[in-house]
Amino acid sequence: MTSTVTVTFEPDGTTVKDVPRSILELAQGAGIVLRSECGGTGACGKCRVQIVKKYGSISLPSDKERKLLSGAELTQGYRLACQVRVLSGKATIYIPKESRNEVREISGTALEGKVVIAPAVKKVRCVLAVPTLEDPRPDLERLAESLGRAEIPEIPLSVLAVLPETLRSANWDVTAVFYHDSLIAVEAGDTTKELYGIAIDIGSSKIICHLVDLTDGRTIARENAENPQIMYGEDVVSRITFAAKAPENLHRLQSLVVETINSLIVRMCAAAQVAPDRIYEIVFDGNTVMHHLFLGITPKYIGVSPFLPGLKSAVSFPARDLGLAILPEGKVTSLPLIAGYVGSDAVADLMLTKVYEKPECSLVIDIGTNSELMLGNSEKIVVCSAPSGPSFEGAQISSGMKAVGGAIETVKIENGTVTYTTIGNKKPKGICGSGIIDLVAELYSAGIITKTGKFVDLSHPRIITDGVPKFVVVPKEETETSRDITITEKDINEFLLAKGSLRAGWTILAEKYGIEPSQIDRIWLAGSFGTHINIENAMSLELLPQVDKSRVVLAGETAVGGSKIALLSGHERNAIVSVLAKVRYVELSVEKSFNREYLKSIPIYHAISHTPA
Amino acid sequence: MTSTVTVTFEPDGTTVKDVPRSILELAQGAGIVLRSECGGTGACGKCRVQIVKKYGSISLPSDKERKLLSGAELTQGYRLACQVRVLSGKATIYIPKESRNEVREISGTALEGKVVIAPAVKKVRCVLAVPTLEDPRPDLERLAESLGRAEIPEIPLSVLAVLPETLRSANWDVTAVFYHDSLIAVEAGDTTKELYGIAIDIGSSKIICHLVDLTDGRTIARENAENPQIMYGEDVVSRITFAAKAPENLHRLQSLVVETINSLIVRMCAAAQVAPDRIYEIVFDGNTVMHHLFLGITPKYIGVSPFLPGLKSAVSFPARDLGLAILPEGKVTSLPLIAGYVGSDAVADLMLTKVYEKPECSLVIDIGTNSELMLGNSEKIVVCSAPSGPSFEGAQISSGMKAVGGAIETVKIENGTVTYTTIGNKKPKGICGSGIIDLVAELYSAGIITKTGKFVDLSHPRIITDGVPKFVVVPKEETETSRDITITEKDINEFLLAKGSLRAGWTILAEKYGIEPSQIDRIWLAGSFGTHINIENAMSLELLPQVDKSRVVLAGETAVGGSKIALLSGHERNAIVSVLAKVRYVELSVEKSFNREYLKSIPIYHAISHTPA
Repeated sequence: MTSTVTVTFEPDGTTVKDVPRSILELAQGAGIVLRSECGGTGACGKCRVQIVKKYGSISLPSDKERKLLSGAELTQGYRLACQVRVLSGKATIYIPKESRNEVREISGTALEGKVVIAPAVKKVRCVLAVPTLEDPRPDLERLAESLGRAEIPEIPLSVLAVLPETLRSANWDVTAVFYHDSLIAVEAGDTTKELYGIAIDIGSSKIICHLVDLTDGRTIARENAENPQIMYGEDVVSRITFAAKAPENLHRLQSLVVETINSLIVRMCAAAQVAPDRIYEIVFDGNTVMHHLFLGITPKYIGVSPFLPGLKSAVSFPARDLGLAILPEGKVTSLPLIAGYVGSDAVADLMLTKVYEKPECSLVIDIGTNSELMLGNSEKIVVCSAPSGPSFEGAQISSGMKAVGGAIETVKIENGTVTYTTIGNKKPKGICGSGIIDLVAELYSAGIITKTGKFVDLSHPRIITDGVPKFVVVPKEETETSRDITITEKDINEFLLAKGSLRAGWTILAEKYGIEPSQIDRIWLAGSFGTHINIENAMSLELLPQVDKSRVVLAGETAVGGSKIALLSGHERNAIVSVLAKVRYVELSVEKSFNREYLKSIPIYHAISHTPA
Repeated sequence: MTSTVTVTFEPDGTTVKDVPRSILELAQGAGIVLRSECGGTGACGKCRVQIVKKYGSISLPSDKERKLLSGAELTQGYRLACQVRVLSGKATIYIPKESRNEVREISGTALEGKVVIAPAVKKVRCVLAVPTLEDPRPDLERLAESLGRAEIPEIPLSVLAVLPETLRSANWDVTAVFYHDSLIAVEAGDTTKELYGIAIDIGSSKIICHLVDLTDGRTIARENAENPQIMYGEDVVSRITFAAKAPENLHRLQSLVVETINSLIVRMCAAAQVAPDRIYEIVFDGNTVMHHLFLGITPKYIGVSPFLPGLKSAVSFPARDLGLAILPEGKVTSLPLIAGYVGSDAVADLMLTKVYEKPECSLVIDIGTNSELMLGNSEKIVVCSAPSGPSFEGAQISSGMKAVGGAIETVKIENGTVTYTTIGNKKPKGICGSGIIDLVAELYSAGIITKTGKFVDLSHPRIITDGVPKFVVVPKEETETSRDITITEKDINEFLLAKGSLRAGWTILAEKYGIEPSQIDRIWLAGSFGTHINIENAMSLELLPQVDKSRVVLAGETAVGGSKIALLSGHERNAIVSVLAKVRYVELSVEKSFNREYLKSIPIYHAISHTPA
């Protein structure tokens, strides 16, 4: 017989009864999402919790906990939620704020795309002839006739089954809804003005939805949420691993996203006063793994050489097949993919930036765990994926965190003094990607680290050498957590490896395209990450090619913007297919020059100069 | 101006004139169905033809032809019909036997139908190139290439989701299953020989299923069951009334039939050792009400003037939409309907009897609660529905019963002695339709009843007058139930009303067509009822027109045979659509002459004579 354990989580006050398992899993059962950038493997140390009370047995600290928690912390009951198991009895667990995920508000895209509105969904009002004994044509044929068609080639059974009642309840005055040439709904009365769709960007971290009026192209509501798959790993590789383990795991990851999107749809519909069954299409983008998980296709073979997706073409399925809370016969449409690690989010970036329509040579960079790089113009486009790792998102950095409230987002070091700003002007909790870029650039310019990221002088007043040497960015007196916010040589190395990967990526693309990186006409920084970084610092570190700052566009949430364009325009959807036929994908792992270029790209070569802005 | 080409096909000797196009298309125009498992993409190589003569220009061999045909074959004029185009002039093409779809006898019905086997479902074996880092095409695109297609236009999500695992578990050797141009399954290994479908006749009383091997047209298992909707009423009007009361009632009637069919499928699969997911299509027929209930469409408006069905065209839906236990993405296809009371069972009768291909004038009668009558030939066809009531099925007759074991099926009265036979030679329980016909005819010939069905002399030794006067057919000592089997004047009246309705129906049809009933060349008695009746008695009562007995065909289970033809042949499915466009439906209830003709049709005019057979 399996025993039951009872755990109460504070400050939430939520109690769960369950079989003995890890606190991370118990918390999930209570609907509390803890940080687990490593996917619950005990590697990131972000899921710190405090055992406040216990009446029973709890597992002893693991090696991983002993490594990531100090003796003092262990004494105070701090543990890693993914490691500690409640074995019997009851326990009360306190979850510190910094161990939870938090979401920052997003703004619209920085780009004002122009698009000719011609969605795949169309409405036609029809007033049918009233039947008589002399005109006994059946309902469907009567509807076809009023639409000027010989027949209705395709009609879902759910629509056909209610057609007789719909026609009569509407007194033979209805609106037919077509997706391309397929009838997907027949609505009572004139509903031609109610025509809605949703654009979604499914990021590994965040899901962004726009509810769009398809008659005029306006976004009438927008919502976003953290991607709850994060509980199974911050990076896509952890999620591939989890999904590949068992079919129910794949289904679990799919359901998490579907349920999240459904809750966002409910909120958007309430805000904009739109009935969900007047939403006829969802167009989504995401990296290849997010795309596959959302559709329930195993991502297993994306994770192993030769890194194959199940498909790359755009596909459409009825919303009911995915359980999405719009019109059941409405469509869910994916944008096409480019390769295993260049997904439809990159395609959406292309659609919004329209680099393929311009004579100038553009570089589009979408920075993430895998960063997508696209270089080209109307003549040709080369793309690659750079395995930049999660350090730009604060993971694998000891004091790293996501770009949420309390994260240090800018840093300056002048005359030995460190100044910083945080998101939301809150007390600092950790340091996010844009802060790390600043910090490394400033540490190098201030002569505190070498070009390979080693501390020049361990006796520097802000370097503490109790254990691993650390540079104190913010002393514990000023922090939210009452712990020093620091950076180690290992942290800096993680960052330099990531930027090396990016630099090698755009260097090789420039070579393939036949241009010097400094001659690139325009750099589009896609994704919300790009909107917060200090461009000069990013260039001095050669995270970006060194071009005139005016040539850089902080494009914001390009991906959802690209999906919105596709939602609004069948023409743009077709156009991107022709563009992609010409796109050349460069697989860096088989490029001979990659290793050489990568090693060359890791060190820092340029110091920034603090000139007045 | 487009030029015309002239092509003669041998050994058929058929000549077509058409615009320049592929030989495959030209052959289709000539009604010759060539094999094209790949859908005419040049991938399967099954449509080999030989160019015997040409006076004009023919396209050069394509790369695909060079790949699939040897140099010697090309020299001898062998080409792939889907690839080669006749560009100008004339040509004579020989079609080898192995390039044609086979013609098979349709057994399983009393009729000897012939059909060219070309089902809507096709299988194509494909061996895919194994992916490498140098050839990183995704799975779906890889599959499309092996099928000789640029893309796969439609794929269900359930098939796509398992595609990566299917391809790898099969070591890249699979069989693709297409329904017309839609991919509906990808199966591991070579499954081309496993191709099954089901033909179903959904009668108000009985559901008849045939499991058919679509590679050779054989029925490999057959099952039938009572239609369990009977618990909600014997006749269709009761079921309309019940279904119209509440949506859950409609759903209940639908489920009853779906569950019954599923249990028949299980039995047939077990008997024939066929896996249910190797069944790819169900073609069904039924009267309009059975059709609507099966699809979940309300039949309410069939029941009220102007008696409109929801649709009359043929439709196909995925089996999963109806919960049928075949391949979930397999299709359920209806035959087209003619009118509210002339359903797809009548269409199936037409398809099997092929009266529309013959110069002779045929009358097809399918007797039931509503009897369908069709009269015509290759020139024109008129149809009507006669509301004959359920008395032919033994209902509304005091001692009536269905044609099952123990039912009296023949009756003779000679010299005051009643002799009879029962189904299965069992002790009699009641009297079925064919027995009632005999009984009424014999009672009249023996002078026991008048032409309007009244007893001539209540003192007749077999008439008991305890209560309502009854003629004792079988005394209680001889019956299974130990109760007299009797017939009353009311019973006889029910029967005469029913036969009056039938007679009025074919009289009016003959008038519309322009023929005397006695001049009808052939009478097809469709349905199992027809196979048991005494033709002379039926003619003496004018249930049937009085023609030479040799002109009557007892056609048996024609409806399921018609569905089987549609299952086996896409060509026949298309052909019936053109036939129906010419069929003229006569609504008896608005015919001025109906009432007069009906009243005239009720009495009995002719006595039978007992001459030796």
